[in-house]
Amino acid sequence: MNVEAIHDDLKQHFDEDLENIRQFLRQPSISYTGEGIAETAQAVADLIAGLGGEAGVVQMPGHPIVYGELWQDAPKTLLIYGMYDVMPTDEDGWMAEPFGAEIHDLPGLGPSVICRGAVNTKGPLAAFFTAMQSIRRVEGKLPVNLLFAIEGEEEMGSRSFPAFAQEYAEKLKRADAVLFPFFEQDEAGMPSLVLGTKGMLYVELICTGGEWGGPTDRGIHGSYNAWVKSPVWRLTRALASFVDDDENILVDGFFDDVRPLPAREAALLDEQIDAGRFDAGAFREAYAVRQLKDSDDRRAWHRLFSQPQLNIDGLFAGYTGPETKTVLPHQATAKVDVRMVPDMDPDRVLAGLRAHLDKGGFTDIEIKVYNKYPWSKLSLDEPAVQAMIRTYQGLHGELELWPINPGSAPYYVFERLLGLPYVTGGLGHGSRQHSSNEYCTVAGILEFERSMVTFLDEFTRGPAAPQGEEHE
Amino acid sequence: MNVEAIHDDLKQHFDEDLENIRQFLRQPSISYTGEGIAETAQAVADLIAGLGGEAGVVQMPGHPIVYGELWQDAPKTLLIYGMYDVMPTDEDGWMAEPFGAEIHDLPGLGPSVICRGAVNTKGPLAAFFTAMQSIRRVEGKLPVNLLFAIEGEEEMGSRSFPAFAQEYAEKLKRADAVLFPFFEQDEAGMPSLVLGTKGMLYVELICTGGEWGGPTDRGIHGSYNAWVKSPVWRLTRALASFVDDDENILVDGFFDDVRPLPAREAALLDEQIDAGRFDAGAFREAYAVRQLKDSDDRRAWHRLFSQPQLNIDGLFAGYTGPETKTVLPHQATAKVDVRMVPDMDPDRVLAGLRAHLDKGGFTDIEIKVYNKYPWSKLSLDEPAVQAMIRTYQGLHGELELWPINPGSAPYYVFERLLGLPYVTGGLGHGSRQHSSNEYCTVAGILEFERSMVTFLDEFTRGPAAPQGEEHE
Repeated sequence: MNVEAIHDDLKQHFDEDLENIRQFLRQPSISYTGEGIAETAQAVADLIAGLGGEAGVVQMPGHPIVYGELWQDAPKTLLIYGMYDVMPTDEDGWMAEPFGAEIHDLPGLGPSVICRGAVNTKGPLAAFFTAMQSIRRVEGKLPVNLLFAIEGEEEMGSRSFPAFAQEYAEKLKRADAVLFPFFEQDEAGMPSLVLGTKGMLYVELICTGGEWGGPTDRGIHGSYNAWVKSPVWRLTRALASFVDDDENILVDGFFDDVRPLPAREAALLDEQIDAGRFDAGAFREAYAVRQLKDSDDRRAWHRLFSQPQLNIDGLFAGYTGPETKTVLPHQATAKVDVRMVPDMDPDRVLAGLRAHLDKGGFTDIEIKVYNKYPWSKLSLDEPAVQAMIRTYQGLHGELELWPINPGSAPYYVFERLLGLPYVTGGLGHGSRQHSSNEYCTVAGILEFERSMVTFLDEFTRGPAAPQGEEHE
Repeated sequence: MNVEAIHDDLKQHFDEDLENIRQFLRQPSISYTGEGIAETAQAVADLIAGLGGEAGVVQMPGHPIVYGELWQDAPKTLLIYGMYDVMPTDEDGWMAEPFGAEIHDLPGLGPSVICRGAVNTKGPLAAFFTAMQSIRRVEGKLPVNLLFAIEGEEEMGSRSFPAFAQEYAEKLKRADAVLFPFFEQDEAGMPSLVLGTKGMLYVELICTGGEWGGPTDRGIHGSYNAWVKSPVWRLTRALASFVDDDENILVDGFFDDVRPLPAREAALLDEQIDAGRFDAGAFREAYAVRQLKDSDDRRAWHRLFSQPQLNIDGLFAGYTGPETKTVLPHQATAKVDVRMVPDMDPDRVLAGLRAHLDKGGFTDIEIKVYNKYPWSKLSLDEPAVQAMIRTYQGLHGELELWPINPGSAPYYVFERLLGLPYVTGGLGHGSRQHSSNEYCTVAGILEFERSMVTFLDEFTRGPAAPQGEEHE
């Protein structure tokens, strides 16, 4: 591919591309309410068809998944994973119409598109298509076969995606790797590349009145606490047994399967610390935290990428409104998430939580599972990973490698179920996902388009020979 | 007074009285929203004026209090305490217009007035006035001087009432006793008389991120639990330290001031138990509780009336909606109420909670006080109490004495601040206060009117001489 010519073409057509991307962003597609889901699924199918591909809207028990193919008889095949759904827009503080895709000049960022989905992730999805159109204009065809699996339930936990992946496994496995196009530059411009994600176990611990005591089906007058035990006292006592004062996790066997980071990745973290990457003071300021758990920066940095977490996301019982209301509640609930690192097994962890409750005599406390999927991990040596590294190095100069995403995503579907390496990437910057005034910068969109072209080139050509040509 | 003639007069005028009471009930007076408060305050003043008294609407920082006097130059004076406000009506399941005061035939209860306020407490308040009108029709004047203090914020915690009582103390102290007119018969027809109320300390325990760690002003991404401690873990560990597995309260000194029940009252409770008053099985069925704290009925019955409680009314932190959202919350809150028996001091109890938290290292957990008022207690020998006992015995035959209301009410204002004995009473039945389809029975209204007449007679005449006349 004549990458330079395509980059020039992208520059020339940018105004037009930007308008097309904004048009796509203006179509609401809120998975929680269903608003615009059907229309947006069709719009994605149209984008694939517009590239010359074939696409269909696959009906699933939840929202449909758009499956598409653009077969070019190329030696390599890339599966484009994406999502066309977005979060609701009911937060306070929007400076513009949430689906208006207006361009505002943001302090320190320049002209930016304000829109739900601008960064997460309809912005990069649409910009991937405009980048591909540029390749077609210049080259006539793409250097790679593309498969598409674009879901509409990511914001609801990708419920249908594993079943879809299983059903379409034969087709999807033709890919050499998976790409999730995303604006990966942070506010300071540093692009990052993660080599995996922690697994996720999200449960509710629910204590309801039952054989042990407590009201069983509705709150009763608080004065009857003289006679009747409380599920709230019971749940708080159960919860308190899970960690010590320093939040060390006390569940038997919890750490048994935790594997140390690969030496190469541990060394990377050390380099980052030595280079001053972890500024605890800046973090504390940005996140309004006065004191960290660990005063040793190196230990803290390693911990984020190598240790599991046990966190209470939510807690509720009884009367939670303003002022005073007395009641003896019949139920108390904690929302708890466990983030798992290699080689933790979600089912073993779940069994460990159950055993911990049972050991404390809390056999009645129900564990309701909402999400349960394993960690996933890639090697630095994966060709797709190396292609993205070269893309960042070539276009931007530097990048940051993270051994694992401290958050979670169900990428195990690619890695384990389909046996495919995956990479999330692209230049460009946006932020405030799930918040008001979600944005992406206008300049970043062009950078993203350029990076997608370069990535396809790097991915299809493979690593440069020692004497090979240099890329821009 | 010719009580028999007045009772006859009440019977003759009942249709008219019932219509007047329903008319009063139809006037909304929701203290939380302010709807109809001004109009209803004026309506109460009009009722007092209609009896020949003088009344004024006293403006307070919250809703106004109606103060009135009906001076008859009688030897005894009674202060009528009441409330003209009601709860909102936004519950599901109303079978009729919430302020329609329609009459419906309720299974097992007969014709009943369905209306917000029917029992709590605009129904008995209005019926008190119709009863007084009957005395005036038959006797020309009342046998007692009446003072009135009718507030409009009871459902919001009687916020202005203590200040009003202090301001009007000179006037109010002329009373010999306080009467709170109320339908005191339960569904089975048994009237009860309580000899006091537990005190109330209602607080929020709030754990916010601060010097100890934790996010200080907003939730942050759950994955940062690797670096940042959680106010939720901290609060649950603090709460768990307050009670043991059997909910025995572990706060140092909590029981130091708890006084045993007076022997006469303890004996009353034993009599009630021996008479089969406490049916643990029926209670468990009615309240959907499978097991009580105490399998010994006598101990449980005594406990309700003689022991303090420490109850969690509400608990909340982080994300409490459906499904999954991950967050490391910056705050966790527990709503806690303490019900105090004699001779517990609210300030000492509050200091004890503070000391308990401090001892556990939780010096940062804030205690926000919402309500703090002491218990109050009456002697069985109080003339007003004895007059009500004779009223129930004379009109109904039997009654149940409770040493203390296991719930709470700020009657200390009368007992301590004004030095006045008080009695809550009257025949009649209603229920579902604070719920949909609040009702009082039509037959009970007439019984209530009769009981108010008899009570005034008993209260003004004092105990019968051994050879004295019998009352109906």
